[in-house]
Amino acid sequence: MFTPIPAEQRFVLDHLVRLAEISPESTDLLDAVLDGAGEFAAGEWAPLERIGDTVGAKWSEDGVKMPEGYPAAYQAYVANGWGTIGSPADHGGQGLPVSLAAAVLETLGTANMGFGLAPTLTVGAIEALVHHGSPEQQALYLPKLSTGEWTGTMNLTEPQAGTDVGALKTKADPVGDGTYRIKGVKIFISFGDHDMAENIVHLVLARTPGAPAGTKGLSLFLVPKFRLNTDGTPGTPNDVRVVSIEHKMGLHASPTCVLSFGDHDDCIGELIGPEFGGIRAMFTMMNNARLNVGLQGVQVAERATQRAATYARDRIQGARAGAAAAIIEHPDVRRMLLRMKAQTQAARALVYYAFGQLDRGHAGDAQAKALVELLTPLAKAHATDLGNEVASLGLQVHGGMGYIEETGAAQHFRDARITPIYEGTNGVQAADLVGRKLNMDGGATVLSLLDRMRGEAQDAGLHALIDACADITGRLLAADMDDRLAASYPFLTMLSVAVCGWLMEQSGRIAASSEGDPAFLKMKQVSARFYVEQIVPEALGLKAAATAKADILYALDAAAF
Amino acid sequence: MFTPIPAEQRFVLDHLVRLAEISPESTDLLDAVLDGAGEFAAGEWAPLERIGDTVGAKWSEDGVKMPEGYPAAYQAYVANGWGTIGSPADHGGQGLPVSLAAAVLETLGTANMGFGLAPTLTVGAIEALVHHGSPEQQALYLPKLSTGEWTGTMNLTEPQAGTDVGALKTKADPVGDGTYRIKGVKIFISFGDHDMAENIVHLVLARTPGAPAGTKGLSLFLVPKFRLNTDGTPGTPNDVRVVSIEHKMGLHASPTCVLSFGDHDDCIGELIGPEFGGIRAMFTMMNNARLNVGLQGVQVAERATQRAATYARDRIQGARAGAAAAIIEHPDVRRMLLRMKAQTQAARALVYYAFGQLDRGHAGDAQAKALVELLTPLAKAHATDLGNEVASLGLQVHGGMGYIEETGAAQHFRDARITPIYEGTNGVQAADLVGRKLNMDGGATVLSLLDRMRGEAQDAGLHALIDACADITGRLLAADMDDRLAASYPFLTMLSVAVCGWLMEQSGRIAASSEGDPAFLKMKQVSARFYVEQIVPEALGLKAAATAKADILYALDAAAF
Repeated sequence: MFTPIPAEQRFVLDHLVRLAEISPESTDLLDAVLDGAGEFAAGEWAPLERIGDTVGAKWSEDGVKMPEGYPAAYQAYVANGWGTIGSPADHGGQGLPVSLAAAVLETLGTANMGFGLAPTLTVGAIEALVHHGSPEQQALYLPKLSTGEWTGTMNLTEPQAGTDVGALKTKADPVGDGTYRIKGVKIFISFGDHDMAENIVHLVLARTPGAPAGTKGLSLFLVPKFRLNTDGTPGTPNDVRVVSIEHKMGLHASPTCVLSFGDHDDCIGELIGPEFGGIRAMFTMMNNARLNVGLQGVQVAERATQRAATYARDRIQGARAGAAAAIIEHPDVRRMLLRMKAQTQAARALVYYAFGQLDRGHAGDAQAKALVELLTPLAKAHATDLGNEVASLGLQVHGGMGYIEETGAAQHFRDARITPIYEGTNGVQAADLVGRKLNMDGGATVLSLLDRMRGEAQDAGLHALIDACADITGRLLAADMDDRLAASYPFLTMLSVAVCGWLMEQSGRIAASSEGDPAFLKMKQVSARFYVEQIVPEALGLKAAATAKADILYALDAAAF
Repeated sequence: MFTPIPAEQRFVLDHLVRLAEISPESTDLLDAVLDGAGEFAAGEWAPLERIGDTVGAKWSEDGVKMPEGYPAAYQAYVANGWGTIGSPADHGGQGLPVSLAAAVLETLGTANMGFGLAPTLTVGAIEALVHHGSPEQQALYLPKLSTGEWTGTMNLTEPQAGTDVGALKTKADPVGDGTYRIKGVKIFISFGDHDMAENIVHLVLARTPGAPAGTKGLSLFLVPKFRLNTDGTPGTPNDVRVVSIEHKMGLHASPTCVLSFGDHDDCIGELIGPEFGGIRAMFTMMNNARLNVGLQGVQVAERATQRAATYARDRIQGARAGAAAAIIEHPDVRRMLLRMKAQTQAARALVYYAFGQLDRGHAGDAQAKALVELLTPLAKAHATDLGNEVASLGLQVHGGMGYIEETGAAQHFRDARITPIYEGTNGVQAADLVGRKLNMDGGATVLSLLDRMRGEAQDAGLHALIDACADITGRLLAADMDDRLAASYPFLTMLSVAVCGWLMEQSGRIAASSEGDPAFLKMKQVSARFYVEQIVPEALGLKAAATAKADILYALDAAAF
């Protein structure tokens, strides 16, 4: 049911990311990496998707047990080196471009989205340590995280503080030897506990004594599940307890833990980066995590599309031209499938393109750095919105069978629904776009991107959308924050579709003039044409909402809703 | 958590349905009926919503057991006469307008959507018997169905025949005494078995010996769970067995049964209407059921909106103007909630308006009869699409808590997802619109409705949408069927939003010039303004898709998807 798509991934990496510019040496490895990841994911991870949903991760007093087969499949992932692709070369990784590592992660998560969250979080922990850890911390922890032998977690949320991280209360008291005693409860900790790796590295936001209120008083701490022996091996259990796991609508393979730190006042952690540097370190983790959540949108969209297309080719129902026909032959089913295909490719183009800018930024390109800042909320929010839309269409293609759990379409629909929520809700992404991202340079990054897109776009509708985005950017820059926020979500969607339209149109053009598998190249041209002709104009319909002011939202008292 | 909304329902019945024109005598009862239904639903049905989801209906060899509390709550519904509102006055019902009965059903289903499906299906069985049953059948069955003492089912689907009812294989062999032996397996039979009523009346599509192939060879049979004694009381069990119930993503309170008829060649049924009249009788049931499924879209949207608004008022997170604030004070949360409110009211306006035309049609108004034919696919498809959109927004408002089952937001999201599928997928509704409904009178009904709307609409965007719908109608009438079908879904959405916009704009105007609760009247004006200003323009963005041709859908081979 899961088919790797190395040709599609390679096309996007070659032509939209232009990986050869970023890392000429990695292009030689490209086919081997993409093919190998596909083969591994299809063989080892995809078969566990169903049990991950039906049995799921289980909590007991002794910790979280993953469903049968997961520990072995995880260890195979480590043994085969799939964790090391994008990990730092200085610390046991291969140091390949993050855009290539993203392709591998996409493949793993398409095979098994819930499972794929474990490596995703580990990548966040690696990023935090690379950018903010001391040389000693890096030497102790990075080699094990780089391979995936140990996994990582992000501990932000507390019951009273979801989006509002400034309200966090977890405490960190200095022991006197440079370490800290951590005390507090964290919720929504993905893979906060499991039985697949020999250690888990928790990165925990907490507050030192006398720290200022709000986000500026936060510091980041490294809290291992097992404290390290002097030789660096896992030793004594730390005082971290998994209190429960959430009963979620989906993503059951991923245990969402409530973690209690320091029940017995013996949870020892160490500071990562400077005191009060927590929020900065958190953004390092979060930005990476946000692109990776956008990538989950691509994953679930790809899998849902594959499943629906397979079903639609097999299910005979009704007739065309007087003969019994598979439902894929009916126009509205084709419309759904072509839409799924185009939206999935658009989401992939957007997310990979953002990862490519991240690679370029790492290499010192300042424009690319600004661009990835701008694109992160788009990639996170829009790709996850598309993941949900595509998963819903996939269920619809199945008709009544889609609502029955056994077909698997419903699992994608349920799994996808978390992605617009976690790592900052999509509303938070929209606020980030019209607030921080427009403010960082007075709109220069978005306006110069739109200029570039205008210069390259050929379709009149796409031009109109690009112009509308530029016009709205100007309005928002002049607007007060409430008006910006009122318009933020429709604007984010319009801008995302404009970027996707620009990338899809390019893809179609490139496919038209490329040599290669004719069926694949034709598919790229058709999906691009569908996107530009039918999806781009929809986004123009959002202009009224993206230029509306906040007044109507406050015309009613809260009680009137 | 569930609050009845008699003021809103009354507003729509008074001003959009104009119930006083349909049934002047029922307006005196209106407040008593709406208030009483609200009180009953809140007291008896809403408290069972959660157990309906978590425990659900259970299958055993002895049949389906409903969760604890359901049989008593159902019997209270019967005892209080809630089943009788719209049932025929000649047969134990009150014979009130169906638009008023719909308001009662909306209230029950908002309190508990899965439970509400039981009466919904009974209404379909009543309709079939009223229009196609013999006087004897009516006398025997209608009084019990009218009160809800017995429930009804619709048995169409078979494993090999979902949308394609012409492929049905269930057999009906004449016994010789006027009855038939039924043999076959039916799937997706909602409330096909349960323990809440003393009998269940199955209406079953089957094929007599030598019947022509396809839909024209189908006949409709009445198959009681218990055959009737000569005094009309339930007697010997019929040879109908519930083989299993489906493991669905949601709507767990509603058992979706696989029914096997005639395992022991002793399943006795009687013909309803003439032999080969099955498809006509099925449409009688289906049309009614389709409006009622549209009404389920309203139900789940209303409940999701109430739940999200309550959560958003209570959940403190972040600050506004320097003080801790409930999330309802944040602009993007308000945008979601106002959108939910406006979309819910739009869905209700559309569905009630269609029911009102059904009432007018029953009274002999030929134009209204044509209008309800036209509006049925819109009400079914668009109101259920809105139910899904609103339920998803409701989950999003809850943030991470929305993904945890305990908050209930996820249940609405899961429950809602069946409504675009059953009683003819929304794609089938779109096909019905551009096929049968445009063909029935060469587009006269839709064009005259659009003319009327154009004459009354005031907003320029709404005018543009109405004009676009008229333009597309003309194109579709001239197009071949594949091109019609390719455009069908976006056209259905555009036309639905145009009708909703027209009704919402009216609502706003009426509220502005009405006396009454100022908070309520203001809310109606604000939701109308939001709908017309922000939602209507979105639909214009679908014009490209609604004028596209089928060619692009067939540019790829089926294997390329």
